[in-house]
Amino acid sequence: MNKNDLSPASFIGVEGNGIISFGSGQPDLPPPDQVYKMLPHYRDFKYGLIQGMQSLRKALAEQYPDSGSEDFVVTNGASEALDLSLRVIAAMENGKSNKVLLAEPYYYSYPHLIRFSGLEPVYLKTSQGRIDLDDFRRKVNDCKAIIINSPSNPTGRVESIGTLKEIEKISSEHGVFVISDEVYKELIYVRENYLLSGPHVVTINSFSKTYAMCGFRVGYLWSLDADFVQRVIAIKTHASMNTNILGQEMALEATRVPRQFIADQLKIWESRRDLLFQGLQSLDLDIWKPEGAFYVLPKIDNPLDFVWNMYSQHQVITYLGDWFGAPGRVRFSYALDVEKIEEGLARIKKYLSR
Amino acid sequence: MNKNDLSPASFIGVEGNGIISFGSGQPDLPPPDQVYKMLPHYRDFKYGLIQGMQSLRKALAEQYPDSGSEDFVVTNGASEALDLSLRVIAAMENGKSNKVLLAEPYYYSYPHLIRFSGLEPVYLKTSQGRIDLDDFRRKVNDCKAIIINSPSNPTGRVESIGTLKEIEKISSEHGVFVISDEVYKELIYVRENYLLSGPHVVTINSFSKTYAMCGFRVGYLWSLDADFVQRVIAIKTHASMNTNILGQEMALEATRVPRQFIADQLKIWESRRDLLFQGLQSLDLDIWKPEGAFYVLPKIDNPLDFVWNMYSQHQVITYLGDWFGAPGRVRFSYALDVEKIEEGLARIKKYLSR
Repeated sequence: MNKNDLSPASFIGVEGNGIISFGSGQPDLPPPDQVYKMLPHYRDFKYGLIQGMQSLRKALAEQYPDSGSEDFVVTNGASEALDLSLRVIAAMENGKSNKVLLAEPYYYSYPHLIRFSGLEPVYLKTSQGRIDLDDFRRKVNDCKAIIINSPSNPTGRVESIGTLKEIEKISSEHGVFVISDEVYKELIYVRENYLLSGPHVVTINSFSKTYAMCGFRVGYLWSLDADFVQRVIAIKTHASMNTNILGQEMALEATRVPRQFIADQLKIWESRRDLLFQGLQSLDLDIWKPEGAFYVLPKIDNPLDFVWNMYSQHQVITYLGDWFGAPGRVRFSYALDVEKIEEGLARIKKYLSR
Repeated sequence: MNKNDLSPASFIGVEGNGIISFGSGQPDLPPPDQVYKMLPHYRDFKYGLIQGMQSLRKALAEQYPDSGSEDFVVTNGASEALDLSLRVIAAMENGKSNKVLLAEPYYYSYPHLIRFSGLEPVYLKTSQGRIDLDDFRRKVNDCKAIIINSPSNPTGRVESIGTLKEIEKISSEHGVFVISDEVYKELIYVRENYLLSGPHVVTINSFSKTYAMCGFRVGYLWSLDADFVQRVIAIKTHASMNTNILGQEMALEATRVPRQFIADQLKIWESRRDLLFQGLQSLDLDIWKPEGAFYVLPKIDNPLDFVWNMYSQHQVITYLGDWFGAPGRVRFSYALDVEKIEEGLARIKKYLSR
């Protein structure tokens, strides 16, 4: 680790030694016990269907309106679902430029994945962490696709239903693909999730955040455009084949876990959100109230010094906003227990008031 | 299934009902018991290192000369290792065209993966299923990379050590990347494997064929070019993150299985090879003797009718050679037990002598 490379990926696996991590974008509490229950007697070993296990896709179809198992592709996490979707869009012709619109701040993988597929990121203004609809209207018609991420990593903000409906409608009118990354859809504190839909929408989700299954890498995409689904499968057939069969069995078990698990988790997340938000607010930081996911993105003076010094001198991990298109800000995850949040806040307070 | 789409992927999961499958490119016998042994008490769930579990990479480094754990990236099967390598090569500048050379017949994913990454496949002549070195010398200098697959899927042929050394040397002189897909390196009947190496070589391997772990999708690449490895990780960080943590634990167990397992498997493969090869030869088919892997690729008159009729009327699955750049031929896998091979041969004999 050095001050010139404080990328989120470089912090993976850094722990212990009194380190308090506000870095990691993954739940700290374990998955429901049930997801492990088939492991002791598991003996399968052969290739699975490239599209994903039929039983898992059937279970997913019950969670999405007007859907069948054929509308899903199970992937190596939401990451692969995003990558495959962008590769498919890059190869399709819809009479548009090669630009993909995304709100800034953004999840840090988006611009990379867009460029890997030969497309070009174009940034959408936000106000208080939410999409500026006027800017969207100005830019959308020139774009091939738009990525929506509500609730947002790294802002923790949730777009209004009015905004989402407007994006859904205008994108459809202009023939622009919408990639809706809804991996935090079960972690919203302010309302129910609004599911963007239509044949121009590809919805991305995963078992990572809702069921704390990050390491198992099981995600999926949902699309009502049968041709789009076939194009995704055509790439996955060669680029990775089926998603790990055991991960898919565990994900199937997760779909059978009572909804009460999610409700209980949400209460935990909300109380941590309150603690961290109020703690940072009391330090007089410019900050948006998180409405979903488990991040908060305050303004911090000299953020590079802050992130580096907090890590190297005070054993507190935070992520530099620059990685998320948010210079001048620092991302804090609250995926850690209350005692650690309190201890971390104390160290930050001491540092900022030095 | 219909006569217009007899792709290998379309046959995945087709079984039962008296079907004899010479199709599937995966072992039918299970992995060593040991790979399942950690499952009952497994409770991890967090992200792993994107490059792969340190302990697994360390175990791999012991199998490769002059290597450390930093020279490996663990991937979602050999497929992802190939895809990532090609994406990296496509983005690198070595003063060459965008062409990738590959022997024809080829593993059917190669041309697709080459095109997905924006590169262009160029085909290398073979004679009796082995690379024509004169054709290689004519074409290599204009290419950015070459893919070598010895033992070969679908031919079952093994290149001579002389050929491999010549390719290694000339590619190096011309600054051409070599992607050496050695997933069948432990399944050679005629000699030890020859490991292509040098800083311009990326070696691809997996646990799928050697340990019958296809469904778990654990592969890896090995490269002594540190910059190349970092470029692979830079893509994987966004495109899929870590490989399934449980699959990696199982792969680590596989590295600890006594070599006798591999020797015993090889004996089984060899006796099946003899049975199928001699059986097809006795039908007077034009055929190359398989020296590795578990495929044989005879000439068959009207191959499309053969594949379709054998499947739809006689419940025997085979793969059309066209998918592998081998028109006029049909691929038979011998990943099935002796009784089934005999029954399948009987049905084929009956069909061909009708």
